[in-house]
Amino acid sequence: MNIKIEKLIKQFAKLPRVGTRAATRIVIALLQDKTGKSESLANALLDAAEHIHPCPNCGVLTDSKICEYCSDTARQNGELCIVRDLSDVLVLEKSGIFRGRYHVLGGMLSGVDGITPSDLNIANIVSRIEKEKINEIIFALPNTVEGKTTQQYIISTINTPDISFSELASGVPLGGDLDYIDDGTLTLAFGGRKKL
Amino acid sequence: MNIKIEKLIKQFAKLPRVGTRAATRIVIALLQDKTGKSESLANALLDAAEHIHPCPNCGVLTDSKICEYCSDTARQNGELCIVRDLSDVLVLEKSGIFRGRYHVLGGMLSGVDGITPSDLNIANIVSRIEKEKINEIIFALPNTVEGKTTQQYIISTINTPDISFSELASGVPLGGDLDYIDDGTLTLAFGGRKKL
Repeated sequence: MNIKIEKLIKQFAKLPRVGTRAATRIVIALLQDKTGKSESLANALLDAAEHIHPCPNCGVLTDSKICEYCSDTARQNGELCIVRDLSDVLVLEKSGIFRGRYHVLGGMLSGVDGITPSDLNIANIVSRIEKEKINEIIFALPNTVEGKTTQQYIISTINTPDISFSELASGVPLGGDLDYIDDGTLTLAFGGRKKL
Repeated sequence: MNIKIEKLIKQFAKLPRVGTRAATRIVIALLQDKTGKSESLANALLDAAEHIHPCPNCGVLTDSKICEYCSDTARQNGELCIVRDLSDVLVLEKSGIFRGRYHVLGGMLSGVDGITPSDLNIANIVSRIEKEKINEIIFALPNTVEGKTTQQYIISTINTPDISFSELASGVPLGGDLDYIDDGTLTLAFGGRKKL
């Protein structure tokens, strides 16, 4: 195969949720296109890479000085929802379930991948608690070992009295058939059963 | 959501095998990365878009004047394998099953998508037949209505005597369990059954 095409396929294949097969299809579609899709995508990417940065307050990716969530005066202070990345913010915003403030970590602590607290946006949670009068921290992190480890670590760094911590409930998803649910979820759902 | 990020996600979501969810993850991963992945991908794309073009003889994407398959003197003339795009060439090359010449159409005829013969690399098949002394044309097109329509159209444009046409066999794939095979394939496999 042509070396330039091969290199491009390899770069696409490294993106999340894209394997070599999908990357091959993507690259061929882009290079066969005669309407300038490749240039337009490349330029949009360069433009975003130049202007987009994490909000210095909460970590949400933005091209403004302060992101749209931190600068929105209609949102309530008091509740801080800690998430892994911007896609979690988007999911929560779409649901309309939360109208407080966000804090984006930019990843999870991971021994395997060598991600330590200093790689994540953890340090300024403490200063936000005081400045923004946070009284509840809601962890909306992935329900995984890494998510729980990260959550425990963050709790251990905070010694503000009168602050409450919560995490999203674990259990059987809506419409979930017990046949299709893994043992871990079932154990959590059983342990967290509610009296009727 | 930030407009620049939203635009970028929309562009990624239009790529084959990438939906909005995958596009969101890809864009966030790229913009969160601090090692210059976005710039590197964008520049590789611009470089490829500038230098890669279809081979004027066979349509394979290349950055040379004539592609590696057409310029390979070790390959046999005589057999011409007609495929949809470069990914099909790669699959056939990987299998090592074919050592003749390729002809890449760059798509399939499609009433729905408005793809007509002039959008595809069909016109110079006739001149290749004479120039390269082709005596067999092997259609390795998708086993779909569009694939068959395209194949019939190409056959109708060729009136060279003594040229033979063939297509890949249809049937039950190796290791295929009849339980899992669709009716169309089963009908083809039955109709094409072989005497033992």
